[in-house]
Amino acid sequence: MITRAKISKSRRIADAMREEFRTLHAKKGTPTASASEIAEQFEVSVPTAHNAINLLVREGLLYRVRGSGTFFNSHPEDAVLRVGIGDSIIPDLSVGMQKIWNKHIEYALNSFSRFSCEARTFSYPELENMRSNGGLSRNFDALLITHNYLDPATIRTLLESGLPTVIYRGEVEYDIPFSQVCYDVNSGIDEVFHEISLPSSESPVIVVENTPNGNSAKQLYLKHLEKAGFKNEAVTLYEMPYQQHDIICFRLIRVHYKKFKGKFIFAGDDDLASILISALYDEGMIAGRDYRLVSIGNQEEYGYQLPDSDTPLIASVDLPKELMAQEACRLLLQIVRNRSLCRFIVKVPTHFVMRRSASYTTTVRTKGD
Amino acid sequence: MITRAKISKSRRIADAMREEFRTLHAKKGTPTASASEIAEQFEVSVPTAHNAINLLVREGLLYRVRGSGTFFNSHPEDAVLRVGIGDSIIPDLSVGMQKIWNKHIEYALNSFSRFSCEARTFSYPELENMRSNGGLSRNFDALLITHNYLDPATIRTLLESGLPTVIYRGEVEYDIPFSQVCYDVNSGIDEVFHEISLPSSESPVIVVENTPNGNSAKQLYLKHLEKAGFKNEAVTLYEMPYQQHDIICFRLIRVHYKKFKGKFIFAGDDDLASILISALYDEGMIAGRDYRLVSIGNQEEYGYQLPDSDTPLIASVDLPKELMAQEACRLLLQIVRNRSLCRFIVKVPTHFVMRRSASYTTTVRTKGD
Repeated sequence: MITRAKISKSRRIADAMREEFRTLHAKKGTPTASASEIAEQFEVSVPTAHNAINLLVREGLLYRVRGSGTFFNSHPEDAVLRVGIGDSIIPDLSVGMQKIWNKHIEYALNSFSRFSCEARTFSYPELENMRSNGGLSRNFDALLITHNYLDPATIRTLLESGLPTVIYRGEVEYDIPFSQVCYDVNSGIDEVFHEISLPSSESPVIVVENTPNGNSAKQLYLKHLEKAGFKNEAVTLYEMPYQQHDIICFRLIRVHYKKFKGKFIFAGDDDLASILISALYDEGMIAGRDYRLVSIGNQEEYGYQLPDSDTPLIASVDLPKELMAQEACRLLLQIVRNRSLCRFIVKVPTHFVMRRSASYTTTVRTKGD
Repeated sequence: MITRAKISKSRRIADAMREEFRTLHAKKGTPTASASEIAEQFEVSVPTAHNAINLLVREGLLYRVRGSGTFFNSHPEDAVLRVGIGDSIIPDLSVGMQKIWNKHIEYALNSFSRFSCEARTFSYPELENMRSNGGLSRNFDALLITHNYLDPATIRTLLESGLPTVIYRGEVEYDIPFSQVCYDVNSGIDEVFHEISLPSSESPVIVVENTPNGNSAKQLYLKHLEKAGFKNEAVTLYEMPYQQHDIICFRLIRVHYKKFKGKFIFAGDDDLASILISALYDEGMIAGRDYRLVSIGNQEEYGYQLPDSDTPLIASVDLPKELMAQEACRLLLQIVRNRSLCRFIVKVPTHFVMRRSASYTTTVRTKGD
């Protein structure tokens, strides 16, 4: 019988050997040291060294050839990983936004190809279908899921697959039991307030959707406005429901456009910003002349185009999609390779991109920069 | 002049070469492919291939020998990293707790030695001293900081050093601009509620310190109690100030010990739990007989000893210190090697360890397991 103390000693030796294997990048077929050599090296008994070897054989890191000894197996990092990239369905997504959305997938596919993984995308209906056939874990070794909203059934399906899973593309960390890569919107909004010094005479307006991303944007704007000396009561806040936010937004402007005159608008995202800009344009108001606006997403960089503008207009916090995809891939591979049981949250830094919508051309030019 | 398109093509090739370098683990002095070979391989022009090589030479990944060609430099992963392990000062820490605390340091030093890094500890006064001499970045390449509380001056010192920094040991994620490894206490408390089925007749008592860890424990206990069907009003809550919590706790028990009779106590941490157990013992009450108690920390596993007990007694959520230290080391090395700009939050899973304090000996034994 192996005692507890012996088990833990063997484990420690196995850990050290695993680390050595990782560092040395030993080729498949390289012979390991013998049990007695290992025993000597670690100053333990030969049976303890044997146990350590057995642990690694069971893990698949080493293999035995009867009469010849123990050898290193092919390095787990060299195996081709089959990655499934799950694409959530967003109802009522505008064509412009669909284009942006697809960039996440495109960049993720590119990243995985660079890491020599075999990646293919699947949609949520496919996911449902694979679940009923038990095919998720048969088809893939790991999953990367774009996330706007995950319903409880999808979360259950993903958990039941038992596959290493990373959720990415979010602007906030969600309370779900997966590792996540999300944007650190805070760092970008920090830059907004560094680049734009709001005079205390300013009356800020916040327009957000009533979604997790919208609520997070609202909190961040309010936090930074408070730090800049604005009391919460001095801020006008409009919260749109997600459903039909475009129609509701247009109606808001139609009725209340005068309330936006000369104001500084903080928009929850570029989708909302573009609706606001279009609606205010219909009332004869021009961004950067009759009001100022900043937003989150920098979607114009990724192919989104405003109806009445041929050059990017919206001053916006860039959510760097390529870096996001790279970090998500890197994280997933790291979890797979280290067989880590931890939950990882990676926050991708964001930056503010200054554009016309945030600068009164008259006031800004006088500064001479 | 190099056009934008060319720059981005060279970048892509440089990225691929960097990845290849990482995968191959090429030794210092290994010649790279020539520019024309690279051009052919990636189907680009020779100047573009040249640009890619130049990018990597500037990064220090390759070096040129006049008349001989380009060679791989020593692998960045092979360089010995000088890691400083900063140890925060905790005023009024009991001797038992100091012993536990030091385990974090011990495990971190062990981990770094396994990763072939040169690690040494420093205290906060040393940190202050190094700051005035500008010596932090001269002495170290990266920092690992144990964290109970970081004051603004220390945060500034760490930020100003510009060194890759990981904060570890926390039970909650703090709103500070560093990557952090913290315990996922939630997963352990989840196990508490799976292992202990509280009858609805139970009147739960929560005792926590008024600290971030204590508040987090309180919220988690309340969340799980609510899920188990207990209304917030049904829970008795005691919040202790951090200063002199021991004296205040003893006085609480001296006056109100009857209120703990037959109750299920959820303690914020083992320090508090041990004070409660000692104080209730003075009133003739025995854990697991006159009341039940669970706690967080599993400090008895790490050498903490209750005055009147020679075997571990406290049923407690284990905060695995060795895994924590390993993950913290791994994360710091990964940040250094990938030169990552992201902020990482790693949540180390925790597990519940059932012990005498949580089981009424009479009721539990009848279950026959």
